[in-house]
Amino acid sequence: MKVNGNPYRTVWFEGSSMFYIEQNLLPFEFRISEAKSYKETCAVIKNMGIRGAGAIGAAAGFAMAQAFIEAPKGLEKEFVDLARKEIESARPTARNLFYATEKVFLAGTKSTENAVQAAHAIANNDAADSKKIGEFGNILIRDGAGILTHCNAGWLAFVDYGTALSPIYAAHEHGRKIHVYVDETRPRSQGARLTSWELMQAGVPHSIIPDNAAASLMAQGMIDLVITGADRIARNGDVANKIGTLEKAICASFYHIPFYIAAPLSTFDLNCESGHDIPIEYRSQDEVLYQTGPDSSNLIHTIRVANPGAKAINPAFDVTPANLITGIITEKGIIIPTEEEIKKLF
Amino acid sequence: MKVNGNPYRTVWFEGSSMFYIEQNLLPFEFRISEAKSYKETCAVIKNMGIRGAGAIGAAAGFAMAQAFIEAPKGLEKEFVDLARKEIESARPTARNLFYATEKVFLAGTKSTENAVQAAHAIANNDAADSKKIGEFGNILIRDGAGILTHCNAGWLAFVDYGTALSPIYAAHEHGRKIHVYVDETRPRSQGARLTSWELMQAGVPHSIIPDNAAASLMAQGMIDLVITGADRIARNGDVANKIGTLEKAICASFYHIPFYIAAPLSTFDLNCESGHDIPIEYRSQDEVLYQTGPDSSNLIHTIRVANPGAKAINPAFDVTPANLITGIITEKGIIIPTEEEIKKLF
Repeated sequence: MKVNGNPYRTVWFEGSSMFYIEQNLLPFEFRISEAKSYKETCAVIKNMGIRGAGAIGAAAGFAMAQAFIEAPKGLEKEFVDLARKEIESARPTARNLFYATEKVFLAGTKSTENAVQAAHAIANNDAADSKKIGEFGNILIRDGAGILTHCNAGWLAFVDYGTALSPIYAAHEHGRKIHVYVDETRPRSQGARLTSWELMQAGVPHSIIPDNAAASLMAQGMIDLVITGADRIARNGDVANKIGTLEKAICASFYHIPFYIAAPLSTFDLNCESGHDIPIEYRSQDEVLYQTGPDSSNLIHTIRVANPGAKAINPAFDVTPANLITGIITEKGIIIPTEEEIKKLF
Repeated sequence: MKVNGNPYRTVWFEGSSMFYIEQNLLPFEFRISEAKSYKETCAVIKNMGIRGAGAIGAAAGFAMAQAFIEAPKGLEKEFVDLARKEIESARPTARNLFYATEKVFLAGTKSTENAVQAAHAIANNDAADSKKIGEFGNILIRDGAGILTHCNAGWLAFVDYGTALSPIYAAHEHGRKIHVYVDETRPRSQGARLTSWELMQAGVPHSIIPDNAAASLMAQGMIDLVITGADRIARNGDVANKIGTLEKAICASFYHIPFYIAAPLSTFDLNCESGHDIPIEYRSQDEVLYQTGPDSSNLIHTIRVANPGAKAINPAFDVTPANLITGIITEKGIIIPTEEEIKKLF
């Protein structure tokens, strides 16, 4: 995708360095940074300089490749074993991360060059799959459509194109006039910060809305379809995604508005029988009680936005049951979320 | 209700002054201020130092009484006519305000003392009605209940007790163990700021939640009932209330959780046939794009919380259709929201 008119990926590899868009600084500053060693790459994954399933996976692959490059002669095996453990502990819940370290680790047993190529392949495949999701998904978006999306499942969360936003970019490129309603997505505001930034760079007309306003817009006939990403999809089609997704799916169902999930096959976890088996991460209450951002002089402040002394509950994800989901857009096509249809994909 | 152990009302009158809790400073500072003239009281209503239907009504009554007190001899009629117009333009959409100015104006044609007594009566009735809402409503709250509320319909929005929170205070006083889940209520965060502050002062156990988390908590069986206030209730039982109320009502219906509205008779507008006739106010997008609060040194900052240059849509209210509402708790009892039942109240 393009930033200020120039093409970028979220993360890429040159020589022995990983380069990446510093997502912690967005949308207030656009900066490319370099991670020169696997340890530096680990730190970037950990501090969320890179976030989002696909982008984390690609970064983990590059970190594993860096470990092979850096391994001191005579201690190769011990060094890469240790590095792999370190990489895998950077964001222990991100499934793509383990997929990537395993793939590059196995490739590296042949040669370091092979490991680097495997890491590149992971990133390239991620971008290619996302592009396909856009090709399959954009047919759902008619000219003049109002589309609601939640959180950020754009190209910043992957290597390129993204999942939920990929069909939107494709429809926009086809010249269809669309308007995207972007849920703010409290508490981390990935919609207001990242999705809005992405759409603005691509010139896609959009408005940020408070999460509370989605049902009201649906009631007024402004939303023709909803598309979100997914963090994990169970074998029966239940979907874990950013907190609030469930609420939007229930409201969409109430108003008979199609509700789509966009995700690559790597998001499906066939070992999970249903949403009940997906553990829900609870994050720090400070994400709800404080907010950080720049003042009018561009000085960054962290302010309290709630009653002092109050406690907050902060579940990071919720589970949307399969029967609320109209379809899942994958790189192999759009499917109805049933166990039978999901199994056919693999 | 009590603040730091001492009983307070939101607004009261002594001599020729109105005293009030400065709501713009809450929850970060508790301060009682004095408005010495009707013009000062108008300014307080306008800048939202006092907000909430009942509290605005009481303040408007006191302002009207102040006008009678201040009226120069020989120009009484001209002075109070002018003052009334000024008061009524302070918050032109607040229905209670017009009710109060009319009542006190008519009382004042007899004597100034009569006007002051009428103003006191408006405030006292507001408190008494709110107390009755608590008495009728608390029977819905069983021991051990988890209760979801949205926005602030507590005593700060009225003279005392409040509407949605009044049954909660009553259940708590009856010794029932309850837990209140307080929707943050973006964009103005009245839940995180005011409702949490009220509940903390009353010692009611509660947690702030992101608005996005309500459905997830319902799915997990943590919510036994939902209670919110109302800004206007149409003749058919449709309810206009803070943006997000509709979304909670749809989710409650999906999970078969009772959804109650608490409101005094003054909130019913029998001239409105249905929710379609209630105009929806759109407020400044800056409420979504910026947030204000204190940093760790208690210095207040306004920070940007969204992509620079992005636009936001900010509807202040939504309309919940009557068929999603289990019951309406009024000072005359709990009713099912149908035109027939509503008409019986009047």
